[in-house]
Amino acid sequence: MDLKAYLKNYGKVVDEALDRFLPAENDLPASVHRAMRYSVFAGGKRVRPILMLAACEAVGGDHQLALPAACAMEMIHTYSLIHDDLPAMDDDDFRRGRPTNHKVFGEAIAILAGDALLTEAFILMSSPDYAAKVGAGRLLPVIREIGLCAGSRGMVGGQVVDMESEGKMEIDLATVQYIHTHKTGALIKASVKAGATLGGADEQGIAAISRYGEAIGLAFQIADDILDIEGTTEEIGKDAGSDEARGKATYPAVMGLADSKRRAQELVEIALEALARFDASADPLREIARYIVARKS
Amino acid sequence: MDLKAYLKNYGKVVDEALDRFLPAENDLPASVHRAMRYSVFAGGKRVRPILMLAACEAVGGDHQLALPAACAMEMIHTYSLIHDDLPAMDDDDFRRGRPTNHKVFGEAIAILAGDALLTEAFILMSSPDYAAKVGAGRLLPVIREIGLCAGSRGMVGGQVVDMESEGKMEIDLATVQYIHTHKTGALIKASVKAGATLGGADEQGIAAISRYGEAIGLAFQIADDILDIEGTTEEIGKDAGSDEARGKATYPAVMGLADSKRRAQELVEIALEALARFDASADPLREIARYIVARKS
Repeated sequence: MDLKAYLKNYGKVVDEALDRFLPAENDLPASVHRAMRYSVFAGGKRVRPILMLAACEAVGGDHQLALPAACAMEMIHTYSLIHDDLPAMDDDDFRRGRPTNHKVFGEAIAILAGDALLTEAFILMSSPDYAAKVGAGRLLPVIREIGLCAGSRGMVGGQVVDMESEGKMEIDLATVQYIHTHKTGALIKASVKAGATLGGADEQGIAAISRYGEAIGLAFQIADDILDIEGTTEEIGKDAGSDEARGKATYPAVMGLADSKRRAQELVEIALEALARFDASADPLREIARYIVARKS
Repeated sequence: MDLKAYLKNYGKVVDEALDRFLPAENDLPASVHRAMRYSVFAGGKRVRPILMLAACEAVGGDHQLALPAACAMEMIHTYSLIHDDLPAMDDDDFRRGRPTNHKVFGEAIAILAGDALLTEAFILMSSPDYAAKVGAGRLLPVIREIGLCAGSRGMVGGQVVDMESEGKMEIDLATVQYIHTHKTGALIKASVKAGATLGGADEQGIAAISRYGEAIGLAFQIADDILDIEGTTEEIGKDAGSDEARGKATYPAVMGLADSKRRAQELVEIALEALARFDASADPLREIARYIVARKS
């Protein structure tokens, strides 16, 4: 299969749906809606929503069943980037080569745009149209799962520990693993799990897809850490070597570059094994797993 | 009826439930969970959750049906206070006589604690136990309504316009009304509407309770504006006259003190009329409406 075409096609599907689902730029108050859209349409690769659509299709579901939840996931991911970039947090002026939200709209609007995007995600997932399509009984567990993975025992928790360990002299592997599985891994796992649930998978199917999600979530972050060392600033869209400069907790810092690469490769194998029970419908998930460690940006 | 005892009793019910529903203080990462609990248990009067329980009972429902959603509402209210107090927003050092969240835990944790409380609200409302009790089909519209009232077209929108009009020379009545109905009114209306829905009211019942909520929401804010002028610093727990000093958009600033008092009183009458169809079960709602304009803090 042509993964590049697949990613491009579904990236477009997600972009168009996000444009439909988000409040219009001129809805009052316009400033916050402009700020929300600025960051949502800032060139993100839509990794999480595409994974959700792909997981839905892997278990035999129509991707439309997962589309609103996939867009909600992207809104949550975007809110987390806006808040992470704030001066009180990572204090980043640029993201993907564009000024960060607070540099354009000011800190107050950036905080509120993040808050509104997080809220909008839950508004979207609880819409009556969506409930009519997938059933309220199937939708509620998805909302809860996504909430749990985004909250203080998920992504937010990962961000807290990441911040608290920054600049520390000794960071052990358990801490690095906690940060990665929570900060990045949680939303990736929730994405594929939600996709499988919305696509109508049985319990074993959902469990298999979850194992896949856990493995690629971790592989994705290790690959990111490696890219930060080996990639050029142009390729990765931020300063190369910035993790090391900040004393960030990363895999290469704790277990070395060679072992990190080996671990990432192992995780891809685990991810592929988890998909053994699925037919060719799961090929996009398989290709994405392979792509994660091979990508250059 | 004894409103004071009612508020005290249901305040305790809400406090105990919040303690049960929130992640424990020692759950990892402890810093963010401590920060969440610090602000949730900072002496709030639990106005919104008690209104939700009272609305549920007014339509003949057991208040237990509304308890998780009522706690979720208080989490959303608390997150909004934490973020509003941030240096980039209102920059307040004290709230209810205690140091604000970011003064105790730092700005980064305060931002994340707010994010986590907002997320936790939706986690709580989508719990399988709760869905089993009230039914997924009744729960989803409540989640959506609360989201809409909290997001960019509700509370966050009100905060944006409030911020943007601060210090402006001329603020018209329409803007003040927009700020009040969105920033404070939206969550109050959503509280009673959710209570009525969860209590099993029919459409007319929900509509009547919503009219009540709109009226008292606005009355509540006008009374707050009046208190800011007439109350002592000790009574209201913040600097008296601080709205005027900041050039805040308030009712007294736009229509004068006497007319503001008259308007608040009128709104209480409207609220009571909206409850005409309900029996003595709605007495707590009636007493709360009268109390809103009579209170001294």
